Order: sequence, then structure tokens, then C-alpha cells
Amino acid sequence: MNSLKTILIPFLAVAGTALAAGETAAVLTPAQEAIFTINNVWVLIGGMLVFLMHLGFATLEAGLCRAKNCTNVLFKNTLVPAIGFITYAVCGFSLMYPGEANWLLGKVIGFAGFGMGADPEASIAAAYAYNGGKFTYWSDFFFQGMFAATAATIVSGAVAGRVKVNAYLVFTLFYVSIVYPIIGSWGWGGGWLAGMNFHDFAGSTFVHSVGGWAALAGVILLGPRIGKYVNGKAMPIMGHSMPLATIGTFCLWLGWFGFNGGSILSAEPTKISYVLCTTMFGASAGVIGAMLSGMAILRKPDLSMTLNGCLAGLVAITAGADCVSPTASILIGLIGGVIVVPSVLIFDKLQLDDPVGALSVHLVNGVWGTLAVGIFAFRETGYTFLTQLTGAVTVGLVAFPCAFVIFYAVKKTMGIRVSTEEELRGLDLGEHGMEAYPGFQFFSNQ
Amino acid sequence: MNSLKTILIPFLAVAGTALAAGETAAVLTPAQEAIFTINNVWVLIGGMLVFLMHLGFATLEAGLCRAKNCTNVLFKNTLVPAIGFITYAVCGFSLMYPGEANWLLGKVIGFAGFGMGADPEASIAAAYAYNGGKFTYWSDFFFQGMFAATAATIVSGAVAGRVKVNAYLVFTLFYVSIVYPIIGSWGWGGGWLAGMNFHDFAGSTFVHSVGGWAALAGVILLGPRIGKYVNGKAMPIMGHSMPLATIGTFCLWLGWFGFNGGSILSAEPTKISYVLCTTMFGASAGVIGAMLSGMAILRKPDLSMTLNGCLAGLVAITAGADCVSPTASILIGLIGGVIVVPSVLIFDKLQLDDPVGALSVHLVNGVWGTLAVGIFAFRETGYTFLTQLTGAVTVGLVAFPCAFVIFYAVKKTMGIRVSTEEELRGLDLGEHGMEAYPGFQFFSNQ
Amino acid sequence: MNSLKTILIPFLAVAGTALAAGETAAVLTPAQEAIFTINNVWVLIGGMLVFLMHLGFATLEAGLCRAKNCTNVLFKNTLVPAIGFITYAVCGFSLMYPGEANWLLGKVIGFAGFGMGADPEASIAAAYAYNGGKFTYWSDFFFQGMFAATAATIVSGAVAGRVKVNAYLVFTLFYVSIVYPIIGSWGWGGGWLAGMNFHDFAGSTFVHSVGGWAALAGVILLGPRIGKYVNGKAMPIMGHSMPLATIGTFCLWLGWFGFNGGSILSAEPTKISYVLCTTMFGASAGVIGAMLSGMAILRKPDLSMTLNGCLAGLVAITAGADCVSPTASILIGLIGGVIVVPSVLIFDKLQLDDPVGALSVHLVNGVWGTLAVGIFAFRETGYTFLTQLTGAVTVGLVAFPCAFVIFYAVKKTMGIRVSTEEELRGLDLGEHGMEAYPGFQFFSNQ
Repeated sequence: MNSLKTILIPFLAVAGTALAAGETAAVLTPAQEAIFTINNVWVLIGGMLVFLMHLGFATLEAGLCRAKNCTNVLFKNTLVPAIGFITYAVCGFSLMYPGEANWLLGKVIGFAGFGMGADPEASIAAAYAYNGGKFTYWSDFFFQGMFAATAATIVSGAVAGRVKVNAYLVFTLFYVSIVYPIIGSWGWGGGWLAGMNFHDFAGSTFVHSVGGWAALAGVILLGPRIGKYVNGKAMPIMGHSMPLATIGTFCLWLGWFGFNGGSILSAEPTKISYVLCTTMFGASAGVIGAMLSGMAILRKPDLSMTLNGCLAGLVAITAGADCVSPTASILIGLIGGVIVVPSVLIFDKLQLDDPVGALSVHLVNGVWGTLAVGIFAFRETGYTFLTQLTGAVTVGLVAFPCAFVIFYAVKKTMGIRVSTEEELRGLDLGEHGMEAYPGFQFFSNQ
Repeated sequence: MNSLKTILIPFLAVAGTALAAGETAAVLTPAQEAIFTINNVWVLIGGMLVFLMHLGFATLEAGLCRAKNCTNVLFKNTLVPAIGFITYAVCGFSLMYPGEANWLLGKVIGFAGFGMGADPEASIAAAYAYNGGKFTYWSDFFFQGMFAATAATIVSGAVAGRVKVNAYLVFTLFYVSIVYPIIGSWGWGGGWLAGMNFHDFAGSTFVHSVGGWAALAGVILLGPRIGKYVNGKAMPIMGHSMPLATIGTFCLWLGWFGFNGGSILSAEPTKISYVLCTTMFGASAGVIGAMLSGMAILRKPDLSMTLNGCLAGLVAITAGADCVSPTASILIGLIGGVIVVPSVLIFDKLQLDDPVGALSVHLVNGVWGTLAVGIFAFRETGYTFLTQLTGAVTVGLVAFPCAFVIFYAVKKTMGIRVSTEEELRGLDLGEHGMEAYPGFQFFSNQ
Repeated sequence: MNSLKTILIPFLAVAGTALAAGETAAVLTPAQEAIFTINNVWVLIGGMLVFLMHLGFATLEAGLCRAKNCTNVLFKNTLVPAIGFITYAVCGFSLMYPGEANWLLGKVIGFAGFGMGADPEASIAAAYAYNGGKFTYWSDFFFQGMFAATAATIVSGAVAGRVKVNAYLVFTLFYVSIVYPIIGSWGWGGGWLAGMNFHDFAGSTFVHSVGGWAALAGVILLGPRIGKYVNGKAMPIMGHSMPLATIGTFCLWLGWFGFNGGSILSAEPTKISYVLCTTMFGASAGVIGAMLSGMAILRKPDLSMTLNGCLAGLVAITAGADCVSPTASILIGLIGGVIVVPSVLIFDKLQLDDPVGALSVHLVNGVWGTLAVGIFAFRETGYTFLTQLTGAVTVGLVAFPCAFVIFYAVKKTMGIRVSTEEELRGLDLGEHGMEAYPGFQFFSNQ
């Protein structure tokens, strides 16, 4: 243990202190240590499951795009967790959890300095006291770092098929390391929304709508894919692999148990098991809602809509998984699944070309889930519709312009859209010089 | 904690009580609380791993069917866990675990009322006392609800390629919400088979054979796929993707550690680690058994047979993973793997068309695993071959007719088989209006 | 508990003893029991995650080879964990952890007898005292058995596309059951390298380089695939599915959290969370390093190189994940990722045909990671570059000749390379009589 302080010195350039974790630990009883240990394991399990969501995003988006852009989508989704985790260590973590003393502008922006976190030294010195004695500094960072990248990944699908890979990576770099953590700090880092009793349990607003608003900005600035809208009519461009899309959805579904379950930030038995049940209810009802909605509107039970319904239900239940009844969780997910189908059609009417339905899943349902807390939360929580609306709207009013500005700056400097020729041949060849399925015969690359 | 009672009111319509979980918890020592917490985490991990099995079934079945039916298979397997989990909340849970007081017909059928479980209020009030102080009511529900859907998923593969999707979903609805939990209650809910010292640790009988018997009923009522049997000879119809089938098998294999490990219903160290070892031995021996059997009978080591051998070994070890020696677990798995190859050939001789080998894996090996307990269980357990035989046969005598009746009723009302034209074009286009691999060139859709 | 002794008798043929686990357990306080229980769960989670790596290897290697050899790759990777786990029970475990009393030749080879482990009886009798009171005998076996097979799986990819399947399985049998555990015992079983303060935390040397050296032997004895080198120039032979390769990489990445995290061999909160962070840093930096290196050398960001960069970073951080700073973990991973690109090119210059880049990932980075401990480890650990170099070199000097001899013996007796005709048609048809993608149209099987 004594060596842990030394571990940090090269990275954090923190001056020494005599306190070592071991000493603090000594005051814990063995039973307290056991509870600390299991809490810590649960948070790490949560982090690993959130990591699985990146595989989920990679395969879902790849499956829902065309084969000629598949390598490109996979590449972006491999880079995002890598960039996300490292930038979170550089500044994201300390922007998101600045600590009480480091706020500027009245709890709108706080910053605890570059490097890993607000007060790493004290955290390690008092490892067992960190975060209310629930888990270590490193577990916190692992879990939150995994979260960070998900917001950028949401964007990836919406801009697929025409965005330059380097432009996307530069956008990600800025959005994940600065915009996401600052907005997140308002609720989770003790900022001004937290002060208003705004409730976003695991991120319908702070992760999904933040990603969704950025996706909207990207979609507007990029314009639709060639051939998507002909004479004002949306043409179907089918995803190339339903098995990939299904694998992706299941990985996200499973990963969400860590996303929501881990957000309890302890292994408190009733709470984590309750949240896993509401999460599963939300997803299940979303599946059924989108199937029914798809049958009503499109005449057939559409698989890609059903998969998006599952994710819609998950996004929607994320804000209130800890504070609504099982019946409410089913209703929230059901409505989330039902609205995903008309929502996709409306975005197409607006000629906002979103190849994977990310706007309908993450933005629309991120907002819906946030508002649903104001409708369905247990009365004693005191969460109100007005506060929830305020939070959802304010986040949009900041996230969208920020994303727009970053995308716009990138557009003006390095360009964000590939050439027409490259788009027609596919981004796999254009951006990466390789194909996703060499040797396979395609009759169309449309 | 106080709010948890309120959580339930909308769903369960339970009248109030003054007891809150916190009060009961107070009597636990910190060490007992720690053990409760870890038990609870283990059961939730089990539930999440069982969820992963649904991805396993989806990809295994998709891989073993033809590309033209792939979307349909994926769709069914996405719906099943959603329907399974929600119906389990409506009535399945309280049919399966009715509680001592609610039995009818001499421990054959018990029912504790609609809604979530036998006595949710008391369970929550005494969360820490629930289930022998091992885990919360919600963890129990999460784990058991995930289990429930697996029985229906087994059917999915056997009837693939010709069953109407709505017919299949209606069948699933009834079978999962009524038949599965009633039969399961005989052993796991304290019913008449439990009274006989019948042992089915994690479900060779109650999950796999129950699913397998239903698959048999479906296969008989549907008849074989067009072109499968020509002049009394079985024609090979190859699955379209070995990578998908392999991904599916590995997901099931991994998920099975939760299926069996979680069935210990606590994290008791020796028991869970022992069960994971026997489970791995059973699967490994099944792989090797089917490879050898495949080489002997088919001349070449067949991958799909080997994958089914793995699952056969897993199904077989499921009944006795907690009560046989490592050597016995290897033997049980090995025999399971060996018999899967001739079993597939025999069902084909009988013109029972089972595209994925579900009958050989789940029915034959479900029965074999159940009987194996009577042969290999440690003497002090008192498990006898005769009792095991009685349980396996009785379950079949009830499950098969029930499944037959439901399928028959569906057949007579809405029809269960797609039209010849649809079957030839593929169910993806017919049932869902979409393809699994748009753009890819196929030289055959046979 | 009493019955557990009986459990073992058939397998281990161990004479009886009066001690039962329960009795020993009684002396533990409830709090100690809780800590034991959570440690035990963590090690099992580690084992399950290492199992997931086998799915990772299967899909990564399948994706990076051609479609005509895909079934063959999947088959090998399904057999390896099965063979690995069972042979580990027969002799591997007791070669790797022989116990203090069973060394021969001065801590170079130790053997505790056939069957499961050094002293199973005592371990079970004193389950709670086993391994310093951290987890059960069975958990230890489960975790270590899962590890064992990974070394052989590394070989699989390097020899893909031309190795006879039975030859490969025979090689695996000997290498996994004898060579791997003996070399591993030098460091992890208390052998001579452990005595020198050589540090290989989770197996950069003992798993990855041991697998890498065997891959090198196989590659040399097999020769390159037909058409790979024409007039001394390496021709590109593209992998057939980037989605499969990406799925594989993510499964390995996720599984590595168990590989490294589980290697702490307890759930000690600071240690496991710290190791998960350094592991994630190493992987993330490897991704970025290979992307940059790929862009510099190949002009485009190559996805397969980036995926290999991720694995390179993971292999490299494996030796020192517990004893280097976060900055160092980023540097180690970054260098690992950067060197993987030129390394692949150099092996191609040497006409050492390695279809998946296993030599660059596992051998080169296994050695790099081992040496990096000597450079970056915290000073108080006392790990030196010279000792690390000694260990890395000695392991190579033993692993490579052993692998060479086994492969050579197999070559001379049963042959290791398929016929030219079979190689051209593909191993799927030749070795297994089946295709990976029946129905799909290919325009090339080159």
C-alpha cells in the first residue's frame, strides 16, 4: 500500500504526504472492510459492463450502416473509448467532479486541475474513506472514465457514412474532454442543477441527450448522405447486417445493467437489485412498444425498429430507474419504444439524415426519460416536472451550440465531409484503404 | 428504504404496512450485512449471465439457419426475453414460487396471485430475511425472470424457417407464463417432486427438457421445411454462418456459469467454485465427445456438431453440477457430446425436422442429465435413478401435451405455418419485409 | 460441506481424512468469511472473463483469416479451452503449482502428481485457509485452468490457413499440459525465477511470450501460405471480416480486465481497481499508438493494425500492471502499439508468415512488457532490467526449442501441413467438409 503514493507521483506531480492508505484502513473494522470491498467490486463490474457497451455501439452502428462504411464505423468506435479514457484522466474527471472548493461562475464550471481528479492524494491517503467509504479513487475513475466515452459514441452512428474520420476524432476529443464533463458536473459533480433537486439517475440527460444534441449538430452541418432524399422523399438505405445490429443491441442491453446498476455507486442490495429490475422492465417494454408501433405504422414487425425500441426503453428508464415503480418503468419503456418509430419518420421528413436512429433513441428518449421522472417519481422524492424540464432544456441549450461550434470550427479548418467520390465508393476504401469483407460479392453498394 | 414500499403500491396494489426494510436490517450485524451483500451481487451476476444466454441463443440459431430466415430468428430471440420477463412479473413468478400456503391439487398447482410474487410486501419489509437472508426479493425476481424466457427460446430454433412469427409469440406467451412456471414449481417451488427428493439442480429437466418437449410438439405440428426430406432421405440444409453459431455457443457457455453458478442462490465459496468447475468440465468433455463422435460417424470433425456437443455437455451437467465428482462431470458431458451426433441423425430418420439440433441438445440431454444424477450423485445425497426417471418422465408427460395443445389451438385459430411461397422466399421478407444482409450476393437461398 | 471430500474421491483417489471444510470455517469470524467470499467471487469473475478471451481469440483470428479457412479457425479455438481445462486437471495444475516439497532439479521442474493439484485434500479440508485464506481450491483451479489454454490459442492464429487440424490439436495437448505449466512454475509456482525477484504480474512472459515462441516455431516449420511471398515480396492477404476481428478485440479487451484484475488473486480494493486502470490505459494507448504508427507508415489509419495495437498494449502492460504509474502504463501501451506496425512488416520481410500478427502482438510485446517492468516499476519493488531480461530470454530459450521439438515430431509422424490442393480450396472443406458461409457468393477465395 505504501507504494501507492509513489505510483502517482510521476503522473500527478503531487508533493508527498506521510499518510498511507494502510494506516487509514486500520481504523476500519473487518466487517466495514468487507462491505467496502464488495461495493468496490460492484462499481468495477459496472465499469466493465459499460465498457461492453462500446462493443455494443460498434456492432450496432456497423450493422445499421452499409458494408462499404463498416470498417470506418468500427474504427471510430474502437478509438472512442481509448480517447475518452485518456482525456478523462487529463482533464475530464476534474472538470466533472471539481470538488466543493473549485467552482467558478456559481457552480457552472469547476476545475480541479489537470491530472487525475480533484484531490487524488487525499483520496489515496484515505482510500477507504473516499466517496463515503464506498469504493476507491481508482474504481471511481474507471467507472466514470468508461461512461465518458459513451456520449461521443452516440454521435458516431448519426454522422456515419459521410464524416471524415479525422474530423470526427477531433470533435470527439473536444466534446468528451470538455463539454461532456462540464455539463455532467451540473448534476453529478454538485453543480447548479443538483442544487435544484434535478434528478438524472444514470444519464438520460447527461449522457444520452448530451450525445444526442451533438448528433443533431453533426447531422445538420454534414447534410444527408447522397441519395437519401430524392425529391423530398426519404429513400430507404438499409443497414447491411441484422446479426451485427442484434449483437450490438444485446451488448448494450447487458452493458446497461452496469450503466444503471453501477450508478448506485455501492452494492446496497435493495437498490442495485431494484434498479436492475426497472432497467430490464424498461428495455422489455421498449422492445414490445416498438414492435407494436412498427406493426401499426409500417405494417410489419421491423427488426431494426424493435432493436431501437429496446435502446429507447433503456435510455428512457435511465433517468428514473431508482425512483419509479415497476409499473411506471414498464410505461416509460413502452412509450419510449412506441415513439421511436414515428420519431424516425419525422426526422426523415425534416431531412435530418441519421443512419442509425441515434436522434430518436438518445435525444428524444433522453428528454422523455428525464421528463418522465417528473411524472412518475415517488412523491417523497420531490422531483417535479418543471425542474426536470428546466434541466433537459438547459442542457440542450448548452450542449447543442457547443457541439455546433466545435463541428463548425472543424468544418472550416479541416473539413468534415468526405468527397462525393469517396462517399460513393465507401469510406472504408477512402479513409482506411481497406474493405470490411474482402472476397465477398456485393450486388450493390448503394 | 422507506420509499420502497411506496414503489410497489402502483404495481402490486398492496395495502400499507408500517414495517420498513431498514428496521429489519438494523438487527443484522455488519458482517452479516456484508455476506448478504455479496450473496446478492452473485445472484445478480448470475441473472446478467443468464441474460447473455439470450444473445447466445439468438446468434446460435441465426447462424444455424439460412440467411433468408435470419432476421426472423433474431426478431424472435429479441422478443422472448422481453415477453418472458414481463409475463413473469404478471403471473409466472407467483405460479413458480407460490409459497407454502397457496397450493392447490396437492402441490401440483400453486398460485399466489397476480403481480410480483407470493408475498412481496413481507419480502420487502424483511428484505434481509428474504430467502434465508441470502438476497433481496428483487434479485430473486431478476434471476428467475431471466431463467423463465430460456425455455421458450429453446423452441425458437427447432421451429425456425417455417413458423409464423405471431403464432410463435402467442405460443411463447402462454408457455412461458403458465406451463413453464407450474412445472418448475414442482421441484423449485416446493411442489410434489421436491417432496420425492427429485434433484434438478439448475434445470436439465425444468428448463431444458421443458423447452425440448415444446420443441418436439412444434416440430410435429409444423412438419418439416420444404425440401428437407426427399424420398425419405434427409437433405442437408446448412446454416449460413459458422461465426455466428460459434459466437452463440461461446455466449451460452459463458452464460451457463451464471445459470449454474447463480443457482446456488448464494455466493457460498466452495459451492459456487465447485459448480463452475463441474460446469466447465461438462462443457469441455461435450466438445471433445461430439468431435470424436462426429469424426467416427461423419468422417470429419464437424464444427456445428462440436458446438452442439458443447451445449449438450452443458445441458447434461446442469441437473447435477452440485452433486457429482469432477470425473463424473467429465463423463456426463462426454456422453452428452457423443450422443448428440447419432441423436441428430435419428431425429432426421424420423423426419422430425429440427434446424438447429435443439431436440438433441435440450430434450435428449435434458433427460440424460437428469438420469445421470441418479447414477453419479454422491451417495449421501440419496438421489435415486428411479426418482430421477419419474421426474423426467412426468415432466414430459405434462409438458409435451400442454405444448401440443397450445400449438394446436394456435394452428386452428391463426395458423402456425407460413405459406409455401413465403417459405421459399424466406421469412425475413415475408414476415418482416426486410433482409438480414442487404447488398450481399447469394448464389442460393435454398 | 461434509460431502465435498467424497466428491473428490473418484477423481483424485485420495484416502480419507476426518477434517471437513465446515470445521475449519468455524474458526473464521463472520467478517473474515465475508472477505473470503468476496475474494472468491472476484477470482471467479476473473476466470469467467478469461474464458471470454477464448471467444475473443476465436473471432479475432477468424476475422483476420480468409473465409475459406474460417470454420477451421473457429473449430480450433473451440477445442482449445476444452482441451486446456481438462489437461490442466490431469497434470497441468500440479506441474505449475507443485508446492514447496515437490521440486526436482533445483526449482526447474516440480510435480505434485496426476490429478487435481498439489494437495487437494488438505486444501478442501481447510478451504478457508487455502491460498492465504483468499479463495477456494476450486476457484484457483478454475482461474488457472482458463489461463492455461490461452497460450495455445495464441499459436492458432499464427499457423492458420495451412496447419492440419489434428496436428495442431496434438501440439496443443503437449504444449498446454506440459511446457506451459513447467515454464509458468518458474515464476508463479515458486520456482527459480521467483527466487530472483523476476516480475511478470499476469503473464507477458509466462503466457504471451510462451505462446509467441511456440507460434514462431510453428511458423518456421510450416512455411508461408501459398502466394504470400512472391519474388521475395509480401503480398497482402486480407482477413475476410473486420466486424469479426473487432468483436474479437473487444472481447479480449474486456476479458483482459479479468486476466489482469483476477491475477491480484484477491479483491483487495486498491489493487484491483488500480490494475484495471493501468490495463485500460495500456490498451487505450496501444490503440492510439498503432493508429499513429499506421498513419505514418501506411498512410491510412488501418483498422486491423489498430486492433492489434490494442492487443499489443494489453500484452505489454500485463507484466507490470500492478507496479507502474498511470503515465508509465500509457507509455508502455503506446510504445507497444507503435511497434506493432513495423514489427508486422519486419516479420514479413523475414518471410515469417503470420496471418494475424500474433508474433508482433504476443511475442514482441510480451518481451517488451517484461522489459518495461525493469524500466518503469516503482523503485521500491526492486525489479531490475537485468533480471527481467534474464527471465524473458531464458523463457524463450526453453519455450522455443520445446515448441519446435513438438511441432517437429508431429511433422515427422502425422505431418503438419495440409496438401496444396486443400490449402487452395480452403481448410474448411478439406478438414471439416463444410463451409463457414454457405450460400454467400465470393468472387475470390485467394
